Amino acid sequence: MEQTARVKPTTSRRSATVRPFAVMNILNRVFEMRSQGRDVISLCVGEPSQGAPDGVRRRAAEVVLDGTGLGYSEIFGIVPLRERIAEHYRRWYGVDVPIERIAVTNGSSGAFDMVFLASFDAGDRVALATPGYPAYSNILRAQDVEVVELPCGPDVRFQPTVEMLDAAHSQAPLKGLMLASPANPTGTMIEKPELAALTAWCEANGVRLISDEIYHGVSFTDSRGTSALECGDDPVVISSFSKYWGMTGWRLGWAILPENLIAPCDAIAGNLSLCPPVPAQHACLEAFTEEAYAECDAAVEGFATARQYVLDAVEDLQWKDMAPADGAFYMYFRIDDVLGVYADASDWCAGLLEAEGVALAPGADFDPINGDNAVRLSLAAGPENIAEALVRIRRFQNSLS
Amino acid sequence: MEQTARVKPTTSRRSATVRPFAVMNILNRVFEMRSQGRDVISLCVGEPSQGAPDGVRRRAAEVVLDGTGLGYSEIFGIVPLRERIAEHYRRWYGVDVPIERIAVTNGSSGAFDMVFLASFDAGDRVALATPGYPAYSNILRAQDVEVVELPCGPDVRFQPTVEMLDAAHSQAPLKGLMLASPANPTGTMIEKPELAALTAWCEANGVRLISDEIYHGVSFTDSRGTSALECGDDPVVISSFSKYWGMTGWRLGWAILPENLIAPCDAIAGNLSLCPPVPAQHACLEAFTEEAYAECDAAVEGFATARQYVLDAVEDLQWKDMAPADGAFYMYFRIDDVLGVYADASDWCAGLLEAEGVALAPGADFDPINGDNAVRLSLAAGPENIAEALVRIRRFQNSLS
Repeated sequence: MEQTARVKPTTSRRSATVRPFAVMNILNRVFEMRSQGRDVISLCVGEPSQGAPDGVRRRAAEVVLDGTGLGYSEIFGIVPLRERIAEHYRRWYGVDVPIERIAVTNGSSGAFDMVFLASFDAGDRVALATPGYPAYSNILRAQDVEVVELPCGPDVRFQPTVEMLDAAHSQAPLKGLMLASPANPTGTMIEKPELAALTAWCEANGVRLISDEIYHGVSFTDSRGTSALECGDDPVVISSFSKYWGMTGWRLGWAILPENLIAPCDAIAGNLSLCPPVPAQHACLEAFTEEAYAECDAAVEGFATARQYVLDAVEDLQWKDMAPADGAFYMYFRIDDVLGVYADASDWCAGLLEAEGVALAPGADFDPINGDNAVRLSLAAGPENIAEALVRIRRFQNSLS
Repeated sequence: MEQTARVKPTTSRRSATVRPFAVMNILNRVFEMRSQGRDVISLCVGEPSQGAPDGVRRRAAEVVLDGTGLGYSEIFGIVPLRERIAEHYRRWYGVDVPIERIAVTNGSSGAFDMVFLASFDAGDRVALATPGYPAYSNILRAQDVEVVELPCGPDVRFQPTVEMLDAAHSQAPLKGLMLASPANPTGTMIEKPELAALTAWCEANGVRLISDEIYHGVSFTDSRGTSALECGDDPVVISSFSKYWGMTGWRLGWAILPENLIAPCDAIAGNLSLCPPVPAQHACLEAFTEEAYAECDAAVEGFATARQYVLDAVEDLQWKDMAPADGAFYMYFRIDDVLGVYADASDWCAGLLEAEGVALAPGADFDPINGDNAVRLSLAAGPENIAEALVRIRRFQNSLS
């Protein structure tokens, strides 16, 4: 009997340009170790340990028990939630955002994907700071967009400058600029004058500015973060309930869109996601009460305490080139001097996780060029966990020397 | 004072190829009318009125009140949920699926986006039946993939044939084939011999077969639907808790991946979505109990009753060329003879909605070529709503003649 030839379908070339998000894979290992009974302190992801505000959780329980009204919502999310988000922008920034410009999304991740697709075509050039959140680059590459990495070191507080943009734009025109303040993994913030200058540069050059403001409210200075909306109406602003509100797993974020992105984003979201998670949308109606803000601010105080613990330990640990960490709950260090037997920070992090049950994120995830000997530490697990983790890290480093 | 030139950033060309999902926009109008106090029967989307099974809702309430464990999950979802999905495939289809091949996603929508990106590059040709679910085409177009529409009429029960594939493949090689059984908008099912032939054709030609099985379990024949996994290990199978389990707004679906898509999908999902909604994942651990299956089957009996109401009314309504509607909760008709003053079915649907508060989906959404005079009716609202809607539709048609 003749056998029909079988040809395996291939995978796409573009998927090969998307690097696995190492942090999420380390997290998979954390879950595995915990399921085996290991006591693991996870400082690898930005995941606030306090969880959602009480009122949000109570409202969530009510809506899921009631069970009605949990079908599809409007593509951009239920109107009352968008109204409350608009109120939040008045409260924190003094800016008025019509609800038509607010799109609730599947976390900030859904907002990035939607806004990038609506803004950029294959081959377009989009600039961003390195080190930075790796998903920006990976989502853009999945969409065949060219990523223009702007190496940003301690000298520029890990943030792009107008001079860098001029240089990149003169090589070949940029189509977009991705900013993050407070930044991941460095925690540095862009002050208002610099943000205004970057916004003005984008406006003058027809470059789409996308401002990731997901860490606003998580800051250790007297500013919650300046919104790009304070500098103009053209920037896209992306944020989420994940960080300040401690709701990572609920997958609810939003984008504030300029007028000309509303229709394309509506078409894209209406086909690519239909609507964001509806129980979470109803629950988050309670995210903007005085009580909820107070709970979130209390959690930020905890991160500040945790941050101080790390600052107190860093000299002894011989970690260096720390970013200022004005905000977010990340601290980023070079650990060249304490690698011991390990070839790089990725190996060192793997060794630390197996030996002491402490998960850090290796810098290569955030900076493929210079991140090899760097680590990111997340303060989001809170002060007690950070204190215990520092004990374990010191013990691990001592075992290497 | 000199004024700096302002250049508005442009939108992408590819976003212009993505057509708004009209059904979701009609739904927006339904919400608007209801908020104004209008009594609207929405038969425009496939949204089961019964909602999630009781056990799922109770578990959801427990996990959100408890509040712990709602951070990020594994990229492909929590292990116990993937184990239960594997058990479901043994129960319904007698096939063994290792949990490594199961990726839980943001609804089936998230699975389509992920699998398409992992499988296809810009310019690749992917075939699908027209009429069909419009998001397939729109997601593919957003990714610059070429959509090859296979016009499928009543003569082929609205499903592709091997002959059509041969013809399309000989023009220029296909890279993928998208199937849906039961299909949206026609409800037709592909029987096992035809599915086996289509699967074998794809295997022989190195074409990625993606089988949308989201409506499995919602059927009016003695089969819950044949899974492509019964015909081989190469097909991608996509499904969701939205339809049979009545959980549209919870946004939880899954993909069963062949081996060579696991790594690329992990990289894509880990960057594009991080993880699917976590409260819903924990809640859906209760979706596979005997009680939950019984509740879902009872809802399907209600859809069957509603279907019979429509079948009894259709001759009087003068609707024609109905698809067999073996499954799903859709019925698709041509309404050429009753358009009255309206130019096409889109206008007619808009008129019906405003006059009688009944929302149907116009066929142009599913078939840009021949759908102008067709409508899709969703049975998912249940028999009482269908009965009342039929009264209103008849009154509306009478007003036109």
